[in-house]
Amino acid sequence: MAVYTEVSFDDLEALLADYDIGTPKSFKGIAEGVENSNFYLQTDRGAFILTLYEKRVHEPDLPFFLGLMEHLAARGLACPVPMRGREGRQWTQVNGKPAALLTFLDGLSLRRPEAAHCAAAGAACADLHEAGKGFAISRPNALGLEGWQKLAAATLAKADSVQDGLRALIEDALNRLSGEWPTGLPSGIIHADLFPDNVLLMNDKVSGLIDFYFACNDALAYDLAVMLNAWCFESDGAYNITKGKALIGAYRRRRELTDAECAALPALARGAALRFLLTRLYDWLNPDPTALVRPKDPRDFAKRLRFHMKVATPAEYGL
Amino acid sequence: MAVYTEVSFDDLEALLADYDIGTPKSFKGIAEGVENSNFYLQTDRGAFILTLYEKRVHEPDLPFFLGLMEHLAARGLACPVPMRGREGRQWTQVNGKPAALLTFLDGLSLRRPEAAHCAAAGAACADLHEAGKGFAISRPNALGLEGWQKLAAATLAKADSVQDGLRALIEDALNRLSGEWPTGLPSGIIHADLFPDNVLLMNDKVSGLIDFYFACNDALAYDLAVMLNAWCFESDGAYNITKGKALIGAYRRRRELTDAECAALPALARGAALRFLLTRLYDWLNPDPTALVRPKDPRDFAKRLRFHMKVATPAEYGL
Repeated sequence: MAVYTEVSFDDLEALLADYDIGTPKSFKGIAEGVENSNFYLQTDRGAFILTLYEKRVHEPDLPFFLGLMEHLAARGLACPVPMRGREGRQWTQVNGKPAALLTFLDGLSLRRPEAAHCAAAGAACADLHEAGKGFAISRPNALGLEGWQKLAAATLAKADSVQDGLRALIEDALNRLSGEWPTGLPSGIIHADLFPDNVLLMNDKVSGLIDFYFACNDALAYDLAVMLNAWCFESDGAYNITKGKALIGAYRRRRELTDAECAALPALARGAALRFLLTRLYDWLNPDPTALVRPKDPRDFAKRLRFHMKVATPAEYGL
Repeated sequence: MAVYTEVSFDDLEALLADYDIGTPKSFKGIAEGVENSNFYLQTDRGAFILTLYEKRVHEPDLPFFLGLMEHLAARGLACPVPMRGREGRQWTQVNGKPAALLTFLDGLSLRRPEAAHCAAAGAACADLHEAGKGFAISRPNALGLEGWQKLAAATLAKADSVQDGLRALIEDALNRLSGEWPTGLPSGIIHADLFPDNVLLMNDKVSGLIDFYFACNDALAYDLAVMLNAWCFESDGAYNITKGKALIGAYRRRRELTDAECAALPALARGAALRFLLTRLYDWLNPDPTALVRPKDPRDFAKRLRFHMKVATPAEYGL
């Protein structure tokens, strides 16, 4: 949540010369997004976000990310739309960083969503899966089983310094997931990080989905498993089945789950919990001295993973 | 440039219940302000900034700062206006921090202002001095001669570790200023931190002055001395007399300087350079591990101070 690369008014003027989006009225760095620099830009024609892609997002992935947002928006999904420059380009360079101008969406993120918000977000996730069909570019999920194994190798030795028993938990989960990880489920474009921060709401309706920089091709139901982890646990770590039912129910009213997807839900939920546990654990153990955000506590996801390890049937999620 | 205290949508809703400013459409942390947390809030009635006062701004000073902005705005100066709650209060508490809602001003800050911008800013400074008349509360300048002596005592021992000769420069300047620091100049409300960041421009006209949290009562011409330091040096450290002439000339067309003020300008400029040198040096030597901003390099102001130490007459500034 910071600005890593400064953008002066001169830089902005030079940038805007290449776009047909009006003259600037206001321009401010915004405290949003990890490892990207984001600016709020208001012109006489509308509001935009300027994103400078720093370390995490690689330029070769921009045709996928920006093309995807354009594809989804063209199919009616409320998401940021990349503006094209006068020569049709979707991104350019600002201060040596790849940079894109996207439409700004109104709406607010909830820290403590209620069941009705979980339902609205679940429905939006299904809409995203439908809208993603036919997108021409694909991108593998770098944070799947193989990615977890790499992260585990890099963190296991120090895991118990963060929490007693964490190493054993990760090893158990990885062993189990290596055997049970589902293949052949319906797949397509997934968001892969649909946390409450990334869902904007207005009057209890979804006004936009944002931050597509983990999007990839994978099992559609994995998105739902990420959302169960991100939306349906209370701050004390307890699973809230009312929220789970609301989220899954609303998703299914837009896109029905296959029997195989339903059966795979516990394994997918374990995988999703492990994914966020491992990335947070890695960032916790390897804090970036140049980062302007504090790493997130990995233990929240250890707690969720322990819960999922005991789940035997999808009914326990409210399915 | 960061958000130190998070504000959830629940916190925002609770806060807005006390104000008559409409319903929220967008709410985002903004990367602006050092040691305060700032949020951009758009409602169906307008745009606002929510500021949570962290360490540097003390609650007992809020009647001065917020009352001043209200006073200035009522006299036609473009500056943020604190909104009053339903019971007339100018600030409240959010997550244990004093917090105020202020109007959001359009406009852009320039990193590399040209002479015309210096003139516009100089005129706005004079307008501020005129508009400040009659404000009922006063606040001494904590960063005057006495404050510099304290900062020098806390930094001198390590000053040469930052730059060879820095200790001698500070000691020389303090000795000289102790003797020459002017008294009895026309005084009133000054901004005391009128850097380009704090002046918003639109179509080359000033659309607003912001960040009044160093404002105090002191010699009016000291504000001009701060601005000579902040606006009229090139990035290589050279003084740009064209910019100086533009800034001072525009100021004088709104508020004429007395002979004593003109004569005092070199001493005031030395004092202003020493003030920013010392605070930056202190922050450089005592980095706050919880701070989310990098300390500014104190050597830029050592260079300015060295220039001012050689100035004999106000004509050298273009007066």
